[in-house]
Amino acid sequence: MRRKLSVHLLPDLCPPEVLRGGTTVVIDVLRASSTIVTALQNGASAVSPCGSPEEAESIRDQYPAGQVVLGGERGGVRIEGFDLGNSPAEYTAEAVGKRLLAFTTTNGTRALLRSLSSRSILIGCFLNLEAIVQRLQDGGADLHLVCAGTDGVVTGEDVLFAGATVSALVTDQPESWVQNDSAQLASRLWSSVVAGATDPASAVHDFLRGTRGGQNLLTLGYDSDICLCSQISTTAVVPEYDLQSGELQNTGGAV
Amino acid sequence: MRRKLSVHLLPDLCPPEVLRGGTTVVIDVLRASSTIVTALQNGASAVSPCGSPEEAESIRDQYPAGQVVLGGERGGVRIEGFDLGNSPAEYTAEAVGKRLLAFTTTNGTRALLRSLSSRSILIGCFLNLEAIVQRLQDGGADLHLVCAGTDGVVTGEDVLFAGATVSALVTDQPESWVQNDSAQLASRLWSSVVAGATDPASAVHDFLRGTRGGQNLLTLGYDSDICLCSQISTTAVVPEYDLQSGELQNTGGAV
Repeated sequence: MRRKLSVHLLPDLCPPEVLRGGTTVVIDVLRASSTIVTALQNGASAVSPCGSPEEAESIRDQYPAGQVVLGGERGGVRIEGFDLGNSPAEYTAEAVGKRLLAFTTTNGTRALLRSLSSRSILIGCFLNLEAIVQRLQDGGADLHLVCAGTDGVVTGEDVLFAGATVSALVTDQPESWVQNDSAQLASRLWSSVVAGATDPASAVHDFLRGTRGGQNLLTLGYDSDICLCSQISTTAVVPEYDLQSGELQNTGGAV
Repeated sequence: MRRKLSVHLLPDLCPPEVLRGGTTVVIDVLRASSTIVTALQNGASAVSPCGSPEEAESIRDQYPAGQVVLGGERGGVRIEGFDLGNSPAEYTAEAVGKRLLAFTTTNGTRALLRSLSSRSILIGCFLNLEAIVQRLQDGGADLHLVCAGTDGVVTGEDVLFAGATVSALVTDQPESWVQNDSAQLASRLWSSVVAGATDPASAVHDFLRGTRGGQNLLTLGYDSDICLCSQISTTAVVPEYDLQSGELQNTGGAV
């Protein structure tokens, strides 16, 4: 039985009924996915994705003081009154360790909250590429790789990560998958970007600096975040959304 | 002054205000674009794109008998009561010469009718690739390559043609263009498909047989149409939409 392997280039291109029963990976490489993975890697107890700053604040108010960290951005910039913005560099063990992160971003969080009809929802980025691929190889569910994009526009960095994932899955088990056209598009993008590169992370970094998301970050002065988000398979963390608690928890390898 | 060169992977991904003042190429490789180009190549006086079968019939009723040919499809199949379907093979000089073609298809026609805010609208496919590229090199307008897709889903064949166009424009004048991420995605797809191919048309043909649109045609028994639509730069015809008459006319080279 072959499994469907679909890339959706934007959240709006995959209606909820398509995701039903499948495993979805939400991809916002610059930067929500990378920041969530980093926060869990650095010991945050969980991440609660929120649709609005107000929702994040109301979660904080339900816990004793100091138990919840508020993080996120609007327009790439930290939200007023929040503890942290959306740079993975801020999410150190000191900043988030043993605390719940209430997190809201413009595109990544919304992409996740649009995917709730899936049977399981994971968060993927280059930092946990290998761990995500290993997880996806298990089980028989159809797979959906959902690119967050930016304000309804396709962004190259998300498609590139989707392509890296497709490429790894298909190389490993070529006969197991039925890809949609966007999956083929994405995996050819990945092959093209890393072709002949001695250091894939460096090739990813160069590509990310040229995408819409990368250009936005350069404009905002976050050059170093592009470098951080280009590192490949540095952690075994797999953030998975728990439908009951509404939180992302690490169900991957030990931190 | 650099010009914007944007690929839109689906019509819904480019709102009318984005197209305003620019030159738009509507791309539905399998098969509306290829059929329109073939009809004009074979002497149709013009093509009137219609949003519905009823609209096509009402155009026919405004002309003397025998002056208008009805063509088009729904679900890939000829519309009941129509003279021709959507296979370019049907659009011979005998079938369409010196007559107006009233034409309606599921995706291509709709993509065109959504692009009316553009300053000029052209129809592109592999058959007229070189003629389209030459036309786009002239002038200073921003360019929009709009992929028709299929029922709101991205199709590889349209993205491939967009990539061939981007690739030709950028190779010729690398400093002239500011590409969006989807343009880079498309041109990398094109490079990947034709890399090392001694015969690009054959590489295109192989790729088209594997896309969603190609698979649909194989299911319907239209194998030979995929071959017809994979031929590269066989005609200088450039269909251009005339906003006043609502018709596509050949403003490219002599037939």
